[in-house]
Amino acid sequence: MSKKLTSRAEDYSKWYNELVVKADLAENSAVRGCMVIKPYGYAIWEKMQAELDKKFKETGHQNAYFPLFVPKSLFEAEEKNAEGFAKECAVVTHYRLQNDPDKPGKLRVDPNAKLEEELVVRPTSEAIIWNTYRNWIQSYRDLPILVNQWANVVRWEMRTRLFLRTAEFLWQEGHTAHATKAEAIAEAEQMNNVYANFVENFMAIPVIQGLKTESERFAGAEETYCIEALMQDGKALQAGTSHFLGQNFAKAFDVKFANKEGKQDYVWATSWGVSTRLMGALIMTHSDDNGLVLPPNLAPNQVVIVPIYKSEEQLTAITEVVNSIVNNLRAKNISVKFDNRDTLRPGAKFAQHELQGVPLRIAIGARDLENGTVELARRDTLTKEVVTLDGLIDKVQGLMTEIQESLFNKALDFRNTHITKVDSFEEFKTVLETKTGFISAHWDGTAETENKIKELTKATIRCIPLENDSESGVCVYTGAPSKGRVLFAKAY
Amino acid sequence: MSKKLTSRAEDYSKWYNELVVKADLAENSAVRGCMVIKPYGYAIWEKMQAELDKKFKETGHQNAYFPLFVPKSLFEAEEKNAEGFAKECAVVTHYRLQNDPDKPGKLRVDPNAKLEEELVVRPTSEAIIWNTYRNWIQSYRDLPILVNQWANVVRWEMRTRLFLRTAEFLWQEGHTAHATKAEAIAEAEQMNNVYANFVENFMAIPVIQGLKTESERFAGAEETYCIEALMQDGKALQAGTSHFLGQNFAKAFDVKFANKEGKQDYVWATSWGVSTRLMGALIMTHSDDNGLVLPPNLAPNQVVIVPIYKSEEQLTAITEVVNSIVNNLRAKNISVKFDNRDTLRPGAKFAQHELQGVPLRIAIGARDLENGTVELARRDTLTKEVVTLDGLIDKVQGLMTEIQESLFNKALDFRNTHITKVDSFEEFKTVLETKTGFISAHWDGTAETENKIKELTKATIRCIPLENDSESGVCVYTGAPSKGRVLFAKAY
Repeated sequence: MSKKLTSRAEDYSKWYNELVVKADLAENSAVRGCMVIKPYGYAIWEKMQAELDKKFKETGHQNAYFPLFVPKSLFEAEEKNAEGFAKECAVVTHYRLQNDPDKPGKLRVDPNAKLEEELVVRPTSEAIIWNTYRNWIQSYRDLPILVNQWANVVRWEMRTRLFLRTAEFLWQEGHTAHATKAEAIAEAEQMNNVYANFVENFMAIPVIQGLKTESERFAGAEETYCIEALMQDGKALQAGTSHFLGQNFAKAFDVKFANKEGKQDYVWATSWGVSTRLMGALIMTHSDDNGLVLPPNLAPNQVVIVPIYKSEEQLTAITEVVNSIVNNLRAKNISVKFDNRDTLRPGAKFAQHELQGVPLRIAIGARDLENGTVELARRDTLTKEVVTLDGLIDKVQGLMTEIQESLFNKALDFRNTHITKVDSFEEFKTVLETKTGFISAHWDGTAETENKIKELTKATIRCIPLENDSESGVCVYTGAPSKGRVLFAKAY
Repeated sequence: MSKKLTSRAEDYSKWYNELVVKADLAENSAVRGCMVIKPYGYAIWEKMQAELDKKFKETGHQNAYFPLFVPKSLFEAEEKNAEGFAKECAVVTHYRLQNDPDKPGKLRVDPNAKLEEELVVRPTSEAIIWNTYRNWIQSYRDLPILVNQWANVVRWEMRTRLFLRTAEFLWQEGHTAHATKAEAIAEAEQMNNVYANFVENFMAIPVIQGLKTESERFAGAEETYCIEALMQDGKALQAGTSHFLGQNFAKAFDVKFANKEGKQDYVWATSWGVSTRLMGALIMTHSDDNGLVLPPNLAPNQVVIVPIYKSEEQLTAITEVVNSIVNNLRAKNISVKFDNRDTLRPGAKFAQHELQGVPLRIAIGARDLENGTVELARRDTLTKEVVTLDGLIDKVQGLMTEIQESLFNKALDFRNTHITKVDSFEEFKTVLETKTGFISAHWDGTAETENKIKELTKATIRCIPLENDSESGVCVYTGAPSKGRVLFAKAY
């Protein structure tokens, strides 16, 4: 709490880093690039998990758990996937420590305990899972397999940032197996829809659904569906991806099945995932210079009640009223905390709850008792109003919906006003540097142009939107023909 | 389904291994000692998790997440803890793979990507967590810290068995910090009680609460509380432990706080955990020669309904009745599956549900339709009865409670008749080899005697029961004075 946050205008990146730590969401650990997710941050992640897990189960998926380690020989089996992740793999080479003969009280790696085959700490689990699926699948009757895993993964990134890019992160990864190409594509599309629906309706973050270009695809995928969100600083953030993997992993791991006609064919695959990166998206979509702003669906405490009193008698009288409010709110499934700590003044409590993004604060003092009122303070708009106790519960319940929707609409407005159609490369560069946001432009479809634009501007193609006008034109960079506009942006 | 299980009498160990695989709970993976937890097994684990998580939160704990890796210098800081785990540590030494110049298409560890400091894959998280707590704790106001983590851990065991002992396993680990010794001890005791309560009332497995002897304590603990269960083959299984860690980790990581008087003191600690090992306890407590037996609280499907029909018309008529049963059972929060697969005959379905331990099977055929009846088959007793549709829902609801209690009572009877008081070492050896189970015997309190008995009989002291008669006597092995009986057993 102590000092104020750096403002977004002053330094957006610094604002973000400070907010994550000061709002008690996460912090850096003693392990390079790995974070500690603190209880308050983890409680938000748990709400995301619970909702996603429900959606996965509603769409017929089951959870399972596969090993953390991938033997090197399996890891390298699907070559494109291996190539994509090889440069950022944590590798286990030994299985024992021993006393260091040179340094009493210290340990060293036991040179005699070298593994015959190195183990890669999973950066993603296609390899270990498809090696397992080989034994699960003989016939079309064994298909589809619709499995999800909640797990930690490790990608040894050189430049890390809390939640956005960490060496270890938490995620879910769905891995499905199908008898037909069409069914696998439908699954990949379905899960991208599930993500879009979750991120928009539960996290109040508008997203654009699209396809990645070949260079931005998941290593080993034939097609990558994605949802792209826009942060307040005009940079895009990939919030989730769903991959149609074709028969690539089935071929690499020799996973065949007998179809209804008794003929052998390779199995079709998808994989899809979202991670603790969503925490970063959440923070950078809604928060302000006072700290975190949480949509009610994700708030560990949706309402906090702060008593304002000068004597024990006043506190007792207030507590009696508060207990009734608390019970009535809980009966409506609204989570509420009565912050009656005697170690902090009301002002300090206000500041903390503001910093931590509690959607609604109720303050109640001696005069309120007399008048039968309370003071409501909305975190999203920072507005206050005095309301009567009578009708309070309905009022609060209404505000939960209103705040959730208002946050979404605000983010949607921002996003919509930050999609700019440009038709020249000069305009492209100007908009990118001044207005920022998504740039909708024609592209000639080549990786060469894509790379050149990236080199010149740092903007990448975020996606080829699924809902695309079938407008033909000419590439903003080369002037070659284009079948439709794509979305460029600088990105996290 | 296919072939029958090996019977318990024939080969208990083989029965267990076959059951785990055939009931679709788990299987070995391509990684030595690591398992794949299959969807059906994972669904049971999720039920355990949900209930435990609720109990942890009810007792004031919050979840958080700490890094998978522990830098070697932190790992070795608490010497006893380090010594206890050093021999079974997976160690990450490199952070990159590269193309193998000698083998096209293959990868090798990049020799230029050696970590400056090796990272231990956490076998337990005291070190990384106490290193973090140092920054969280300044004053008594920051205490207690009541944190739990759901995570995977790795212990490179040489001999592994599905669920019981695997190189990687899933668990929860609570790590709490307190201002006083008394409070930390109370916390360790409370969490051992939470475990006992959960395992007895939710898993239907009776346990004995006790203290570990010094040689069996957690490495780094001052006192280890435990719950010990007895498997059907007369071997004990440690089902959970809760440690009072004293100030050992606070001293190793220099975690001090200012108490109310403003004086600096080291913080007091506990840690406590249960793991996927509980799946092994579940299987070996209740199951029989036909397969898994699940208490209703843990069954992914508490009831399965199998239609028996010869024509599509019959199936349609049956389905209509079943839909109503399904809706009514779900309204009572009973999970039910209508197994209307047309790829399997009823007999094969019966065998599968029996193997997978579904507590109650309802079969309904054409004659049942005429008579307004169904056939109920209890998995625990393997008994069948025909009952009328009228009153079925209440009957099923009653059976859920009855089966849960009956399984517990059966296990309790077995356990109670397998605690044998012995007063001579001859008797000790005879009971251990013939009757098996817990042996209640006097012990002189020395590690020397404990080791000698272990060497001679393979029995270890499972615990010093908390509910102990204050009966003094003489050690069953040395004849030296003893203050009370302890429980010996061979153990998993």
